Amino acid sequence: MKPIRLFLTDVDGCLTDGGMYYGASGEEMKRFCVYDGMGMVRLMKAGIKCGILTSETTEIVARRAKKLQLDYLFMGVGSQVKQGVKTKLQTCQDICAELGIGLDEVCYVGDDINDIDLLEAVAKAGGLAACPPNAMPKVQAIANIHVTKHRGGDGAIREVAEEILGKD
Amino acid sequence: MKPIRLFLTDVDGCLTDGGMYYGASGEEMKRFCVYDGMGMVRLMKAGIKCGILTSETTEIVARRAKKLQLDYLFMGVGSQVKQGVKTKLQTCQDICAELGIGLDEVCYVGDDINDIDLLEAVAKAGGLAACPPNAMPKVQAIANIHVTKHRGGDGAIREVAEEILGKD
Amino acid sequence: MKPIRLFLTDVDGCLTDGGMYYGASGEEMKRFCVYDGMGMVRLMKAGIKCGILTSETTEIVARRAKKLQLDYLFMGVGSQVKQGVKTKLQTCQDICAELGIGLDEVCYVGDDINDIDLLEAVAKAGGLAACPPNAMPKVQAIANIHVTKHRGGDGAIREVAEEILGKD
Amino acid sequence: MKPIRLFLTDVDGCLTDGGMYYGASGEEMKRFCVYDGMGMVRLMKAGIKCGILTSETTEIVARRAKKLQLDYLFMGVGSQVKQGVKTKLQTCQDICAELGIGLDEVCYVGDDINDIDLLEAVAKAGGLAACPPNAMPKVQAIANIHVTKHRGGDGAIREVAEEILGKD
Repeated sequence: MKPIRLFLTDVDGCLTDGGMYYGASGEEMKRFCVYDGMGMVRLMKAGIKCGILTSETTEIVARRAKKLQLDYLFMGVGSQVKQGVKTKLQTCQDICAELGIGLDEVCYVGDDINDIDLLEAVAKAGGLAACPPNAMPKVQAIANIHVTKHRGGDGAIREVAEEILGKD
Repeated sequence: MKPIRLFLTDVDGCLTDGGMYYGASGEEMKRFCVYDGMGMVRLMKAGIKCGILTSETTEIVARRAKKLQLDYLFMGVGSQVKQGVKTKLQTCQDICAELGIGLDEVCYVGDDINDIDLLEAVAKAGGLAACPPNAMPKVQAIANIHVTKHRGGDGAIREVAEEILGKD
Repeated sequence: MKPIRLFLTDVDGCLTDGGMYYGASGEEMKRFCVYDGMGMVRLMKAGIKCGILTSETTEIVARRAKKLQLDYLFMGVGSQVKQGVKTKLQTCQDICAELGIGLDEVCYVGDDINDIDLLEAVAKAGGLAACPPNAMPKVQAIANIHVTKHRGGDGAIREVAEEILGKD
Repeated sequence: MKPIRLFLTDVDGCLTDGGMYYGASGEEMKRFCVYDGMGMVRLMKAGIKCGILTSETTEIVARRAKKLQLDYLFMGVGSQVKQGVKTKLQTCQDICAELGIGLDEVCYVGDDINDIDLLEAVAKAGGLAACPPNAMPKVQAIANIHVTKHRGGDGAIREVAEEILGKD
């Protein structure tokens, strides 16, 4: 395997346990995990670009990305609801082109059906496709996908980050 | 079994884990699950009407229903506290009459004693009556009820949705 | 055993899982459980007085008590921190005197060391002393205490309520 | 072992389960545990100084420390992100110098890599180094560290506090 140079992750179910806290004005909070934040900070210190790809567009995620000073934040991609948006695979390919790297140098973590196109492409290219154990059955069934021990929102991202840091 | 044409669910304990987050102004938040939202979106894309029946009346639930663009939202039904309100069974029968369908084409998910009338009627008619494993013992004891593997607020609704989508 | 005529419970760890959600202005939220609320509503419908005894004084708890229309709410009792406050046992004895009942007609649910005086008195009198499985070891070791299967904030109170309703 | 005279703990993952609740304005809440608060109150009543060492600087933690009337609160120490800040070990040594005690009279609870310097120093000196079972593998592997049964945010700190109170 080539070293990972780009780390991307979905939000709901990966950086969180899938919980969406609604109040009288709509979604008001998401619960992130301190371990995952430290994981991405450590990846970036090691020179690996980090980012988020999510189908939702919310200030909550923007704030978390800003706090961690992530390299990339793409919201509104790969949506199952809205038409005419880029898929997650297309978005990742754009970033790879910008960085001059291949999908075999990418790690992507996703958990639901709109993550499958990108996860499959990364796995086939020889990159690192991963999902938490709370991922949909169809995601866990992708060939060569790595299923983490930790659940989303409980250290799944940190676990993948440490594996990357340990290997490269 | 006839194909399901109407999917209805209770809120607390089914779309959530039963948690009610109170602050200084009363209930301020509920925790919904991204997987359940995707499940109902997928049902609606497949032409199945989706809705919520709940005994509480709160802007929190209205916001979640609006986000998912659900077909039906009935709040304040089947209450154990207030008098003179329609039961959940009566409300469901009204919707069925409007759609011109029978209870054998309905799926309902509930977890507490005020869900029993509707769950029993759906089960007897040959529809799909389901509850999460955190449902009250009397609910889980209903004849022919389907108890999901996932708990309320942790994918129970998505699990039922995928079963409907897989079967029909 | 005589029928229970008064049901009292502690808040943190019994009506919640012990979680205290802090924000920039201090404690902002507690997570209650829909099943427990329904349990106390059912007890009150059956003619059993219901109330809360807690060492904290917070609008959050006052709001939950108001929503459920509980008969009693005593805050600031049995504190380990403040001096000169009534113990939980003294407060319960006051309510019993008002109602003209004995401790053998009381059910109390508590989980920490400042609940021990009242739990022991209720258990010795032949009332129903109960705690959730997350209670401190010294509480669970009280003679004749009933340890619930459900954890605090996840239906412990409902479980006790149904046992009372089933027995009496 | 000498009696413990100073009890210090990290926040995220020790006093919480690692969850960070983000809203539209950034981190808005942390979930603390009533049992841990009671544990530190009991330690202080027994004459043991208590405090918090955390790499983050947030009003949320300041509020929790104020509510419990902790003796020490050091925020922004041991950060992996910011440069030029004191390590957690240096900060603890400063407090020890002020109190005229040694590291063998200190208990410290931490869970991540920026806690390792202090945990190792305390363990080597003969003090009490502890971590919750959700701590990073490198932390749990420290020689002579005590791994609690309870997870962070679910009574880990109370468990350590009761051990200290039982022993001394």
